[in-house]
Amino acid sequence: MTDVKNKIIFIIGVSGVGKSTIGNLLAEALEIPFFDGDDYHPKENVLKMSSGKALNDMDRLGWLQTLNKLAIGQMKNGGCVIVCSALKESYRAILSAKIETTCKWVFLHGSFEQIKERINNRKGHYMSSDLLQSQFDTLEEPKNAIKVDISLTPEKIIEVIDKELMEKSAFGLFGLGVMGKSLARNLANKGFKISLFNRHVDGQEVDVAKKFKNEFGELSAASSFDDVERFVNSLQKPRKIMLMVNAGKIVDDVIEDLLPHLDKGDILIDGGNSNYNDTNERVEHLKSKSIKFVGTGVSGGEEGALKGPSIMPGCDPDAYNEVKPFLEAIAAKDANGLPCCTWIGNGGSGHFVKMVHNGIEYAEMQLLAEVYIILKTMGKNPSQIAEDLESWKPTANSYLMEITIDILRKKEGEDWLVNKIMDKAGNKGTGNWTTIASAQLGVPSTMIASALFARYTSYFKEERVMASRNFASENLPDLDLSVDELLEAYQFARIINHYQGFKLIHEASENHNWGLNLSELSRIWTNGCIIRSDLMIELVTTFKTSKNLLMNDEIIRRVKALKPSAKKVISACVLNEVAIPNLSESINFLNSFAVSNSSANLIQAQRDYFGAHTYQRNDDDTGKFYHTDWINN
Amino acid sequence: MTDVKNKIIFIIGVSGVGKSTIGNLLAEALEIPFFDGDDYHPKENVLKMSSGKALNDMDRLGWLQTLNKLAIGQMKNGGCVIVCSALKESYRAILSAKIETTCKWVFLHGSFEQIKERINNRKGHYMSSDLLQSQFDTLEEPKNAIKVDISLTPEKIIEVIDKELMEKSAFGLFGLGVMGKSLARNLANKGFKISLFNRHVDGQEVDVAKKFKNEFGELSAASSFDDVERFVNSLQKPRKIMLMVNAGKIVDDVIEDLLPHLDKGDILIDGGNSNYNDTNERVEHLKSKSIKFVGTGVSGGEEGALKGPSIMPGCDPDAYNEVKPFLEAIAAKDANGLPCCTWIGNGGSGHFVKMVHNGIEYAEMQLLAEVYIILKTMGKNPSQIAEDLESWKPTANSYLMEITIDILRKKEGEDWLVNKIMDKAGNKGTGNWTTIASAQLGVPSTMIASALFARYTSYFKEERVMASRNFASENLPDLDLSVDELLEAYQFARIINHYQGFKLIHEASENHNWGLNLSELSRIWTNGCIIRSDLMIELVTTFKTSKNLLMNDEIIRRVKALKPSAKKVISACVLNEVAIPNLSESINFLNSFAVSNSSANLIQAQRDYFGAHTYQRNDDDTGKFYHTDWINN
Repeated sequence: MTDVKNKIIFIIGVSGVGKSTIGNLLAEALEIPFFDGDDYHPKENVLKMSSGKALNDMDRLGWLQTLNKLAIGQMKNGGCVIVCSALKESYRAILSAKIETTCKWVFLHGSFEQIKERINNRKGHYMSSDLLQSQFDTLEEPKNAIKVDISLTPEKIIEVIDKELMEKSAFGLFGLGVMGKSLARNLANKGFKISLFNRHVDGQEVDVAKKFKNEFGELSAASSFDDVERFVNSLQKPRKIMLMVNAGKIVDDVIEDLLPHLDKGDILIDGGNSNYNDTNERVEHLKSKSIKFVGTGVSGGEEGALKGPSIMPGCDPDAYNEVKPFLEAIAAKDANGLPCCTWIGNGGSGHFVKMVHNGIEYAEMQLLAEVYIILKTMGKNPSQIAEDLESWKPTANSYLMEITIDILRKKEGEDWLVNKIMDKAGNKGTGNWTTIASAQLGVPSTMIASALFARYTSYFKEERVMASRNFASENLPDLDLSVDELLEAYQFARIINHYQGFKLIHEASENHNWGLNLSELSRIWTNGCIIRSDLMIELVTTFKTSKNLLMNDEIIRRVKALKPSAKKVISACVLNEVAIPNLSESINFLNSFAVSNSSANLIQAQRDYFGAHTYQRNDDDTGKFYHTDWINN
Repeated sequence: MTDVKNKIIFIIGVSGVGKSTIGNLLAEALEIPFFDGDDYHPKENVLKMSSGKALNDMDRLGWLQTLNKLAIGQMKNGGCVIVCSALKESYRAILSAKIETTCKWVFLHGSFEQIKERINNRKGHYMSSDLLQSQFDTLEEPKNAIKVDISLTPEKIIEVIDKELMEKSAFGLFGLGVMGKSLARNLANKGFKISLFNRHVDGQEVDVAKKFKNEFGELSAASSFDDVERFVNSLQKPRKIMLMVNAGKIVDDVIEDLLPHLDKGDILIDGGNSNYNDTNERVEHLKSKSIKFVGTGVSGGEEGALKGPSIMPGCDPDAYNEVKPFLEAIAAKDANGLPCCTWIGNGGSGHFVKMVHNGIEYAEMQLLAEVYIILKTMGKNPSQIAEDLESWKPTANSYLMEITIDILRKKEGEDWLVNKIMDKAGNKGTGNWTTIASAQLGVPSTMIASALFARYTSYFKEERVMASRNFASENLPDLDLSVDELLEAYQFARIINHYQGFKLIHEASENHNWGLNLSELSRIWTNGCIIRSDLMIELVTTFKTSKNLLMNDEIIRRVKALKPSAKKVISACVLNEVAIPNLSESINFLNSFAVSNSSANLIQAQRDYFGAHTYQRNDDDTGKFYHTDWINN
């Protein structure tokens, strides 16, 4: 029998349809308690009905509330079956208060003649057939109910109900690209019954969902679709549909396609790398239609999505409670076995932190690329560089470090594969967006911007090749650096990168009132995601006491210890013409930041000179603005 | 008498209103020729009318075309007065073909009875009063005409017409902030009759335009308003209204306020620092209403706006032709006496190049601030630094250099004023937008971004003061640099800054199909604007042969010559913990750019490893994308 644990099932319909019979049988089959609503009428109601008078809505209110309390009370016992005519939508609203998403409705229906005959065949029933007509007049057919014809045998009726309860999937996955497929298998592996959807495109995307289902054993219980309506109808309500489609306009198109088939309370989860501003707008748009929208970051690539990604959902807290069982089940687990998934905050906060995650990732990748080019300039081959990095693991391990070592060791014939790869770096938008967000929020995320621009510069390959001939220098000094010094410079720059990334998140949180928890965020980034690292594990603790990394004593101590090597490596590379924009940015940031009197006073004077923009003074702490006539001394 | 040189004035109205009398008097008063349209009828028409038959539209066509040619021919003689009934809009369209914007209409009107009586009093006139009724039936009253009542005396009528012709202003200025006021005085000084508008805000902005007009002698002929409708009606058509209001939503609000009072063909000029994307949208929005929109950058600050700014208008070419006499008259002049104003390109191109101008300005300012902090670190006081900069003028002069010297020399008592200025740099958005645009367009504008982020970093003053204590280093080496080395590093960084700025413009031009002319752009930046400099003067010539600065032989030679000093200064500052993010970015950019094999191959490998993003190969010039299973060797 279907597992309907914790489900409240209301059997409803006009008098005489056989609610009690069916309710009893169903409760028995599901092994949950049965309650007849009529048994809970207060004395007044029973007397009124016995005297042939119909109850009015005021009479019913207290009674329906009693049944609602009964239902809520049964939740902890594994659910129950309750029989009650519940003819009006307003009655059902009272019955299902606070359990809207867990209760199920079974609506027994038949024709007037059919039911009248049944009633006349019963003995001792206190309802007249005139009253039946009034019940038909009152009846507002429920829209979200399992509707069953009473001409079937009771056994058949139970079978139909069971099938309806059983065949619905608990979770839907829309879009079966690389990430969608991995998440689908992950969900199925965790025992969830899922529905899979992929669009049909003639000659290009044909039976994608069906073929995918047949490819993997864990998907045997899954249902596959290329029809939106059938896909939506295959899901238990409130429906939970995760969109794994390309970010941008497509997400809006998909939402518009789904909307006509959705019901109030359904939940859409956007698991793509959507722009957080778009997510903010979608939340508001869908709120107006009573659809909940979860914008969630998912990091870990193809493998992470399959084995356990880091998940960053932003939404209303109650929407999170509904998707939590699914998302937390498929997420990676941290060192304490807790899921690398947590409620981030409202609106677009989930996509915002995922965006910054990717920005931090850009810089982490760029720093490894700079380490690689320095060691290469020092004359080492990729395998030797991999050995050096291997020796750094006890101090500076990370997922990106591990894959870099794998990459550097990969050979193709006698040569290393990395030597064959075209040095034009691509990007998919999130590094770009992080730079834009930091420009908009007034936060100096120089590491991320510099990593983004390093990719852009690499992209002008043809110009670069010509420039390399035009600007070639002769007689460059040797790069006289030790591997330990390089490791220290690398670690120095990584701390600056993490400081700036979390600073951007903190400032955005203040700006949008998201109340983000930096320690919890670090925790869900300790596994499953691309920027997981030993440093990230440390930050979980650091952020419990500091919101600002560069104000933390241990970090200060370490940065000061690493700084001499950073300075040495960076200045040596500048003299040697080795491209280290990101490492260089790290020391320049600290030098710009850790200074009580910067050169910005001159900039303020210039702005006031040509644009009368005014300035504040060091010796006036009221913050008053001054303007000077600079020309006449 | 009013100066109506080059104006064609058509006196129109039904027969009998006295067109010839008024036309003759007016022509005499304006000292321009008079023509009676009736004298130009072909024989056939005269015969037809004499026989009492009315002319049809086919009869009139050739005649109206003859009058149109007559009018166009008279343009070079200083205009003329032509009398012609021109009852229908379609007739007037033929009469004014190609001179829509220069011709004026004077519509003489009276009642049927009044005119009938006049005709009956005339002798030998060949029109019946029945025909008069048919003329009244035919009459389509002109909307854009000076309408005069014929019950006035001829002398009074001439006075009214003259007043109408005279009192209209040629140009309107909307918004009298610092820049609006300066531009208004500049226009008035050039002899233009202008209308001034400033909104009324109780207790805050009261009679702003009126008070401003009374403050400056050159504005004696200007008209002042705080009522939008009266302001618009005070302008000659097609109206030219320059908006000098804050960028953003206010511009849209102002446009909506103006729209109900505008006519087709009127021109709005947005002279604020609007975002070029907004300008693109406004052009399209207003095109649908047949209003022309010019988005123009204006650089030069308060003083430049008054004495001659650099002006960068983006619009349709024919809209430019209409505003050109005004904008080019008030613009600064280059060394050859040509105006620092040119048609930039379509749509938002004017605001785009102004935005990048400001971005280049951010970096130029930051580089001077870094030079200042280096010399300060070397122990010099502001006056000594000013002396050093003074000595740089023959090599590296610029407007920003000049004002920096003024600033550094400004004293307050025994101390220098610059020492008293709070080092928290503000910004008004354009540096921010340039960084965003370069992130969006995929162009590495690292100098601008770094200058923007330097301002942002300065803004966290309180954190900086704490950090300066926490991260203080002891025993820093002396900054052993010569002033000449510093000058060379500075010049090196400026070339990189200008390369990047113009590269961003070039890429945007390709992207938006603007066809921008970099040499002409440099030319209008040689005077009037904030980034005018000796270097900019050189670039006018450089861009005549190169679209890419770093491909130009002379620039290559110079960059190579300057590079050793740049390397030395930057590495010394890094070791000495002097904040030089912008100087540092310049060498890092060149090192990243002038390299045939960068480290981006490793980034591509990493992306392919964790995200299956694929990569291209050096040894496959088909551009094919490859994917590798990196884990299994």
